Amino acid sequence: MSEFGDAARNGLSPAQLEEVLHAVGAARYHNRHPFHNQMTSGALTKGQMQAWALNRYAYQSVIPRKDAAIIMRSEDPEFRAEWRKRIDDHDGDDGWNGGIARWLKLATGLGLDANVVKSEKLVLPATRFAVGAYLTYCTNRTLLEAVASSLTELFSPIIISERVPAMLAKYDYITKDILAYFDKRPALASRDSDFALAYVMKHANNPEKQQAAIDSLVFKCDVLWAMLDALAHAYGEKGNIPPGAFVPEPA
Amino acid sequence: MSEFGDAARNGLSPAQLEEVLHAVGAARYHNRHPFHNQMTSGALTKGQMQAWALNRYAYQSVIPRKDAAIIMRSEDPEFRAEWRKRIDDHDGDDGWNGGIARWLKLATGLGLDANVVKSEKLVLPATRFAVGAYLTYCTNRTLLEAVASSLTELFSPIIISERVPAMLAKYDYITKDILAYFDKRPALASRDSDFALAYVMKHANNPEKQQAAIDSLVFKCDVLWAMLDALAHAYGEKGNIPPGAFVPEPA
Repeated sequence: MSEFGDAARNGLSPAQLEEVLHAVGAARYHNRHPFHNQMTSGALTKGQMQAWALNRYAYQSVIPRKDAAIIMRSEDPEFRAEWRKRIDDHDGDDGWNGGIARWLKLATGLGLDANVVKSEKLVLPATRFAVGAYLTYCTNRTLLEAVASSLTELFSPIIISERVPAMLAKYDYITKDILAYFDKRPALASRDSDFALAYVMKHANNPEKQQAAIDSLVFKCDVLWAMLDALAHAYGEKGNIPPGAFVPEPA
Repeated sequence: MSEFGDAARNGLSPAQLEEVLHAVGAARYHNRHPFHNQMTSGALTKGQMQAWALNRYAYQSVIPRKDAAIIMRSEDPEFRAEWRKRIDDHDGDDGWNGGIARWLKLATGLGLDANVVKSEKLVLPATRFAVGAYLTYCTNRTLLEAVASSLTELFSPIIISERVPAMLAKYDYITKDILAYFDKRPALASRDSDFALAYVMKHANNPEKQQAAIDSLVFKCDVLWAMLDALAHAYGEKGNIPPGAFVPEPA
């Protein structure tokens, strides 16, 4: 159980619930992870940066599918139409002119081969499992829990604002052009998290549901954290790359 | 087992597979159902027409959800972007300016209350079960089977071309305006069924998968047929309206 595991036991006011959700982010969002700190301090090797982009692609590519899982479960056309914007953003009009394509551009801008990245064959198993757990969560849990798990978007403008200037300043091979993915995200993340937060506030109307919403955000923070843990373990100083995973070229 | 239950046992050429799929439609699509014949011959009472529109709404309202189930299962952004157009069409930009809204207009144009229709509370249980089976099918079967089950769209321009002129000619309370839903459908159905048929042709590349595709279209025809069976039984001459279902006002 997380330290937030009984935060709602006595019931929370809307303001208190929002406060707890923000506290979850402050404690457990992946901008607190050592790998993120290494990235922003300029300490990553190019191979580590490539491994990050390649693994994160597997997360990006499942986002529209978890959003479709959420749409599938809603009986409210208005909700579906709002949530559909997320799929629009990631897949674009034709599948390859949205967020996934922009992430691919980031990966290839770091020197990776597009087909290798798209195949996802060199992704760490732990990344696959974390991403798979997220898709399963959004498919099988309550709609409230699935929506609440998206609330990491509340914090993504923070990590982007930490990540982008540092990446540009600290790594000479990184240009503004290859980081185009991040230009679009803060505005979209704010739109999406405003909607999701309003949904959670409306539907988490008893202590049990409030706790479920909090737990869902904790779960999602765990997903993102586990992805960086896996990167750190596989591509850290010692190097523990599991069989079949991406092997950076020697520097 | 349907009469098509071993149609692919020896393997089919693409042309033969397409021929079988069309034969399924010719034999089992719901334009062959007696209720459809009653509708086009002018024999339905207004209460029966209302019951049809009210029950069919439950089908319309689940379409974007089954399409989201299909999107959720595809790892191909291009496929997802193409299939997403179906959700766009049904939900529209804001949930209430697409096909579902136009079907609601049809129902209210027939004198039904919008909130009663939207609540789906008066829908026949057999309709719910058929619609639920369709959603479950698209969620749990292979992607090929889910896509193939959509191929009833191949035949929908036919039923619409039979239905609309007859409805306008035979029922004085029906106007072109309230049938606006059907204006848009033939072009969209052609676009969608072209794409789905090409997908099936490409992916049903052995006898087992060809049979699965054929069976899926049979299944979907069964869904549509069962909905009209339920209407005929509940609202036919004898009248066997189950507890809790829509009761037309006396003529």
